[in-house]
Amino acid sequence: MTDTQTRSHSVAPALDPADGARALALDKQYVFHSWSAQAALQPLVVAGAAGCEVWDYDGTRWLDFSCQLVNTNIGHSHPRVVEAIQRQAAELATVAPSTANLARGEAAKRIVERAGEGFAKVFFTNGGADAIENAIRMARLTTGRDKVLSTYRSYHGNTGSAIVATGDWRRMPNEYATGHVHFFGPFLYRSEFHSETPEQETERALQHLRRTIQAEGPGTIAAILLESVPGTAGVLLPPPGYLEGVRALADEYGIMWIADEVMAGFGRTGDWFAWQSEALNPSRATPDLIAFAKGVNSGYVPAGGVIMSPRVAAEFDERVFPGGLTYSGHPLAMASIVASIDAMTEEGIIENAAMIGADHLGPGLRALAEKHPMIGEVRGLGVFWALDLVTDAGTREPVGPAVIGALKKELLARGVIPFAADNRIHVVPPCIVTPEQVATALEAYDAAFTAVATA
Amino acid sequence: MTDTQTRSHSVAPALDPADGARALALDKQYVFHSWSAQAALQPLVVAGAAGCEVWDYDGTRWLDFSCQLVNTNIGHSHPRVVEAIQRQAAELATVAPSTANLARGEAAKRIVERAGEGFAKVFFTNGGADAIENAIRMARLTTGRDKVLSTYRSYHGNTGSAIVATGDWRRMPNEYATGHVHFFGPFLYRSEFHSETPEQETERALQHLRRTIQAEGPGTIAAILLESVPGTAGVLLPPPGYLEGVRALADEYGIMWIADEVMAGFGRTGDWFAWQSEALNPSRATPDLIAFAKGVNSGYVPAGGVIMSPRVAAEFDERVFPGGLTYSGHPLAMASIVASIDAMTEEGIIENAAMIGADHLGPGLRALAEKHPMIGEVRGLGVFWALDLVTDAGTREPVGPAVIGALKKELLARGVIPFAADNRIHVVPPCIVTPEQVATALEAYDAAFTAVATA
Ligand SMILES: Cc1ncc(COP(=O)(O)O)c(C=O)c1O
Ligand SMILES: Cc1ncc(COP(=O)(O)O)c(C=O)c1O
Repeated sequence: MTDTQTRSHSVAPALDPADGARALALDKQYVFHSWSAQAALQPLVVAGAAGCEVWDYDGTRWLDFSCQLVNTNIGHSHPRVVEAIQRQAAELATVAPSTANLARGEAAKRIVERAGEGFAKVFFTNGGADAIENAIRMARLTTGRDKVLSTYRSYHGNTGSAIVATGDWRRMPNEYATGHVHFFGPFLYRSEFHSETPEQETERALQHLRRTIQAEGPGTIAAILLESVPGTAGVLLPPPGYLEGVRALADEYGIMWIADEVMAGFGRTGDWFAWQSEALNPSRATPDLIAFAKGVNSGYVPAGGVIMSPRVAAEFDERVFPGGLTYSGHPLAMASIVASIDAMTEEGIIENAAMIGADHLGPGLRALAEKHPMIGEVRGLGVFWALDLVTDAGTREPVGPAVIGALKKELLARGVIPFAADNRIHVVPPCIVTPEQVATALEAYDAAFTAVATA
Repeated sequence: MTDTQTRSHSVAPALDPADGARALALDKQYVFHSWSAQAALQPLVVAGAAGCEVWDYDGTRWLDFSCQLVNTNIGHSHPRVVEAIQRQAAELATVAPSTANLARGEAAKRIVERAGEGFAKVFFTNGGADAIENAIRMARLTTGRDKVLSTYRSYHGNTGSAIVATGDWRRMPNEYATGHVHFFGPFLYRSEFHSETPEQETERALQHLRRTIQAEGPGTIAAILLESVPGTAGVLLPPPGYLEGVRALADEYGIMWIADEVMAGFGRTGDWFAWQSEALNPSRATPDLIAFAKGVNSGYVPAGGVIMSPRVAAEFDERVFPGGLTYSGHPLAMASIVASIDAMTEEGIIENAAMIGADHLGPGLRALAEKHPMIGEVRGLGVFWALDLVTDAGTREPVGPAVIGALKKELLARGVIPFAADNRIHVVPPCIVTPEQVATALEAYDAAFTAVATA
C-alpha cells in the first residue's frame, strides 16, 4: 500500500527487524500496559508513522483508522509540528507554570480564538483527565456547589485520588471526591426512554435530566459534565435540540455546563469543537467550560487544558485557584499546539474532515451497512464514526468479543488499524485522510465483514 | 554573570525584547496560572535556558536554584536530551499505549535497572499525580484493601475526580476515592512527638504510625504512601531507622509501602532514588512501589510512572489492570528518558550531586546559618536543601510571607531564581551545578539575608 496523500512526506528511516524483536522483548519484560491483563498481550510493534500510515520494523504498513487513541487528528509526523517541537526543544523545553512564556501565550490565544466569543482564558494540563479535574474544580469553586452530573455512557479519564492522598492544605478543595451523580444521556438506537424519534429522545432525555436535577436538589449541583459527542461510549451524536436544552436547564438552575471535547474537539467532527457543529447545535448554545486534549496537538507532546468563560476567569482574579501540576503550560507542548493549530487552519484540515464525512465516509459506511446485516447502525460525522454491530437487526443484540476480535484480526491483515470498543468498530481516521485512503479502507472493512460473517 | 560550567553549551538565540513584551501581554490576557489569584501576577518571562542558567528577552541571566518546580535535575537544554527529542519527534512522536515501541522498552529497562533488585516493570504516566493515582490503584487491587495512609506534611499531586465523573465501568475500581487517612511523619525540628533526639523521633513516629494502623484496622489498609524525603513540605529527611521501621510495619501488617520519589528521585539526593541513600536508609529497606516523574527526564517532556515489584506485576498477569491514560509510554517522553538516564550515568551527574551536597552546599549553607539568625535549621543532602526561617531561634516561630517575599525579590535582583515554600527557602539547583556556581549563589543568599534582616 502506498501513501498517496500529499501531506505524508517524511522518508521512513532504515528499518531493522532486529529492533522490532528487541522492542517486543523489552516490552514483554519491562513495560506494564494499561487496561490489560499482561500475560497474553501481543502488541503491534510500531516503528514509525507519517500522515495516515503506520509501519513496523519489517516494513509492513497500515492505514491508521484508529488515530491511535483517537488523537492524531493532524496525522502522524506532520512536518510543521515536528519542526516546531525540534525548535522549541533546543530553545526551552520546560519552564515552571508560574513564569510567562511566549509559546504558552501564543497557544492560549489560538485556542481561545477557536472557542470564540464566550471564552477568555486557558489553563493547561498534561492530558484529558487532568483537564476534567480542573474544569470540575473551577465549576465547584465558581458556583459554590459540589455535585457533578455526568452520564453513564461516558469516559472522562482515570484519576481520582492523588489530591485526597495529599496531606497539605491543597487536599481541602476536593476532600473526598464526593458528589458525583450519573444520569442517562440521549441515545436513540438504544433508548433508555422508549423513544421512537429523535425529537422524542431529545425531549425525554431532557425531561430525565430535569428530574434528576430536581431530585438531587438544584442548589447542590455545580456542573453538568458532558462529552459533546460521547466518544468511547459509541460516537453518540446528541439529537437535535439536546445541547440547547442542556444549556437552558443549566441557566434555569444556575449550573455550569462543562463540555468534554477531549475526543470530539479540534477537527474530529469537522469543526474546531463539536459543540460548534451546525448539525449538532444549530443555535450554538455555548458551554461555560471546555475540556480539551488529544486533537489540540494530536498528542505529539502530552497536553490538555480547560477553556473558561469570562465569568470563571474573573472568579479567580482575586481569589487563589487551588489547582496545578508541574507541567502546566509546558513550552514543548505549547509549541506543538501553536504549529498544529496553524497548520490545521492554513491547510484546511478541519474542512477536509467535514468534507470526508459528508461525501465519503458517511455514504461509504452507510453503503456497507446495506450490505452487511451485522452493522445495526452507522453513526457519526466528520471523521468520527461508529458501526454498532448486532447479532440481530430486530433485537439489536450486541455482538460479542469473539466477533470484534475476529474483525480486528481481519482488518489488521488487510492493512487497516481499527479502533474497537465493546460491540463496535469506530472509524476514526486522521482529519487529513484523503478520499482515496477512505476508499481503500472501506474495501478492507467490506472484506473483513464478509470474512467474519462467513467464518 | 557568565556560565562557567562545561555542560552549558547552546548559544542563546538572538533575543528580541518585543517578544518578551508580547509574551507578557498574551500571558495576561489568555493564560490562567496554577495555585494563584490571577490579577496581581507578575510572572518572570523566560526566553531560554541552558545548564544552570535561565534568561529573559532583555538578556538578563539568572542561576536557576529552583530547577523550576524542582524538576530540571540534568539542567536546562542538555544537548543529548534535546537531540533525542528532536530525533524521536521526526521518527514517531506519539503511539497508542497498547502497542510496543523501542524507546518505551529502553526507558523501562533503564528505570527498572536503576531501581535495582526488587523491581520488575514500569507503568508510564504523564507526571507525578497520575503516577500516584496508579500506584494507589495497584496497591489496592493487589492487597484487596482500600485505605491509604499518608502524612500531613506531604504533596502527592492534584487529581481527584475524573474517574469518579466517568460513567462507564472504569469508574468502579475507585468509586468514591474514600479511605484516605493522614498521620504525622517524623520532623525533629518541629516534632509532633516532643522528641529531643533523632532516635527518639524515629521511635515515636513509628509508634504513632503503628497506633494509627491499629486504630484504623490493619486489614483495611492497602498502602503507606510516603515521600522518601518530603519535598515541598520542607525537605524533611527521615531520621535514621524510620524507613526501615516503615518497611517492618508494612511487612507485619501486610501493607504495601509506596515510595513517592517524584521530587526526591533521579539524583536530587545524590542517589538514583532517595530510598537508596546510604545516609537515609543504610540497610536499604525496599518499597513495593515507586512513583516517579520530574528528574526521570528533567521534565523536558511530561512524563512519570510507577515502578512495581514482581509481586505487583504478577498480580496483573491474568487480571486486567483497570487504569490508563492516552499518553502512557509516549515515545517522545520515552526517548528523553533514555537520553537523560544515559547522560546522567555516563557524565557522573548523580555523583556530582552527592559531592556538591557533601562538600559545597551543605557546608556553605551551614556557614550561612551561623551568620544569619533567621535561618533556624538547614536540612538536606545532595542538591536538595531547605532553610527553615524563623523570627526567633528559641520559639522557632516561622517567618511570615512578607519576609519570604522580600527574600525572593532580593535573590532575583542578585541573579538567583529561588524556590520558596511557606517560611522556607529551598536550595535546589540542578545536579550538574558546579562548585563555582554554588559559591556565586551562596554569596547572593548571604547578601539577600543581610538585606532583608536590616530592612
Ligand atoms: C472524552 C474524553 N475525556 C477524557 C479523556 C481522558 O484523557 P486522557 O487519557 O488524556 O487522560 C478521554 C480519553 O480517551 C476522552 O475520550
Ligand atoms: C513528591 C511529589 N509527588 C507528586 C507530585 C505531583 O507531580 P505533578 O505535578 O507532575 O502532578 C509532586 C509535584 O510537585 C511532588 O513533589
